[in-house]
Amino acid sequence: MDLTNAVPPVSQQFALGVDLGGTNTKFGLVNTHGDIFHYGSISTNTKDAVEDFIDELYDAIIPGITEVGGIGMIRGIGIGAPNGNIYKGTIEYAPNLKWKGIIPLADLITKKFGIKARLTNDANAAAVGEMTYGAAKGMRDFIMITLGTGVGSGIVANGQLIYGHDGFAGELGHTIIIPGGRLHPGTGILGSLEAYASATGVARTAVEFLDEHPGIESSMRAYNKDEIDAKVVYDCAMAGDQLAIEVYNYTGNILGLALANFVMFSSPEAIVLFGGMAKAGEMILKPTRENMEKHLLPIFQNKVKLLFSELKEADAAILGASALVWDVR
Amino acid sequence: MDLTNAVPPVSQQFALGVDLGGTNTKFGLVNTHGDIFHYGSISTNTKDAVEDFIDELYDAIIPGITEVGGIGMIRGIGIGAPNGNIYKGTIEYAPNLKWKGIIPLADLITKKFGIKARLTNDANAAAVGEMTYGAAKGMRDFIMITLGTGVGSGIVANGQLIYGHDGFAGELGHTIIIPGGRLHPGTGILGSLEAYASATGVARTAVEFLDEHPGIESSMRAYNKDEIDAKVVYDCAMAGDQLAIEVYNYTGNILGLALANFVMFSSPEAIVLFGGMAKAGEMILKPTRENMEKHLLPIFQNKVKLLFSELKEADAAILGASALVWDVR
Repeated sequence: MDLTNAVPPVSQQFALGVDLGGTNTKFGLVNTHGDIFHYGSISTNTKDAVEDFIDELYDAIIPGITEVGGIGMIRGIGIGAPNGNIYKGTIEYAPNLKWKGIIPLADLITKKFGIKARLTNDANAAAVGEMTYGAAKGMRDFIMITLGTGVGSGIVANGQLIYGHDGFAGELGHTIIIPGGRLHPGTGILGSLEAYASATGVARTAVEFLDEHPGIESSMRAYNKDEIDAKVVYDCAMAGDQLAIEVYNYTGNILGLALANFVMFSSPEAIVLFGGMAKAGEMILKPTRENMEKHLLPIFQNKVKLLFSELKEADAAILGASALVWDVR
Repeated sequence: MDLTNAVPPVSQQFALGVDLGGTNTKFGLVNTHGDIFHYGSISTNTKDAVEDFIDELYDAIIPGITEVGGIGMIRGIGIGAPNGNIYKGTIEYAPNLKWKGIIPLADLITKKFGIKARLTNDANAAAVGEMTYGAAKGMRDFIMITLGTGVGSGIVANGQLIYGHDGFAGELGHTIIIPGGRLHPGTGILGSLEAYASATGVARTAVEFLDEHPGIESSMRAYNKDEIDAKVVYDCAMAGDQLAIEVYNYTGNILGLALANFVMFSSPEAIVLFGGMAKAGEMILKPTRENMEKHLLPIFQNKVKLLFSELKEADAAILGASALVWDVR
């Protein structure tokens, strides 16, 4: 019996990409071109036992797998998850998940599905996705910054993701940009990038500006303070509200200062911005770029591309996770 | 004729290691075990033309090369130089050298000696030396910080030096730690690590402390302000002078804050400190370690080793430069 016939060529195989988020887990079957089939989604945090969650994931995706030809067509499973550790395939002490401590998710998923699973944190997965299918295609040195509820990052140097000694490298959102600055309630760190450049940070800046400048008119004053979120600031700024625009200038200045430091660390070809804040386009990009350039050594000036992700936000995390499968080691 | 006999096995070969500094250029022939033979030194900045400098270097080392068996015994030439670019083998706009603009040093040296030359900046060379022969032996992820007249750095991740897109990665001395802080006269940047943690920075801090606390006794007051350098501060601190010890605490606090950011970037197994300041031992290490740990995310705490270089300062740069030769690509 010729068993080699049983394995389809890679070009016909699929990777199962899983984007495990705090609320929902999205997944899809991805071919080598980055086309996604059989999208699906389940709740992340309704099951107390991670095994029950995996059973539900299995039941949800198995019809799709059957439709593309069965489990033999699946090359592997790639997972992006908060606090994901690539070396151990574990989720470790993720503050937003029900499962506490160290969860050996990749092993549990491999056991259930009978195929190899790899796992990394969500921002690293996004960086792999961008390198495989997006704005960083062909680049060997770039930094991915995800600007969402938090600020995440994935760093690629010499064509490889930087995982560091313990698998947790690339926590650029927690680097300290303003020593003694704003308290990050989740970490207790003062003045970290995430305290300013996340969606939460933008909302806090807006509320601070409204309090500090009671004489300045602003359409943001139509909202209660606890209603002001990044979307309100964005909408007001787009409608021309000067104070809301100043919030973006302030945020961009801090982000630009942080990016200057990152550039002097790894001298990337590009920095790719991804996530909700990227929607603000030039409004955030202009102050970011200006303050980054201002703080760079001359040898780095006017060299680094500041790009927005080219992947649809809904797809990027699934694509990135699936790309871990093709990046065979 | 069997030409294979003409090439000795690598284990019997030597690398010529060249440490090109602002004042002197030191060199030696290094075997694969890191033993240095035929040490030598010439002045760097006495020749207006770089070709004349290379001629002098050649004349100085050729007797040593003859003694180990001739040019056929030399595997290659490794050079550590300020503003050295590994990709192009050039020195680019080095502020402390006579030769202005872009100097294709590796090519010129290859032409003169007839053997392959590689070049990188001095801090990267020190990192390679530490990885090959010193405190970072066997490590795949570490950061080398050189604390001398300036602050340099070499970053190793996934077992490779991070050169970045343009060959200039790892300028951690110029990252901004205190936004709006002390002016670095050479770069115009405010609040960079080098403005505080270099020998020059330590002397400036001492003078500032003496001015700000006129009521506090200090043995440093026996010196004119322009006589106070890092050595004076060191000697006074070692003799128990409280204000001089405070200078080290202050410097260590800023260095520790910077190191916390570097750890959250690349999550190294160790940070290796090298250069004049490392002589201060626990006096600088204790505040550095404490403030680093204080600013780290919990997942990074109590993991990163803070080490001093294990290489003799006089040897490290030559060893590091020579190690570029064995690291064949």
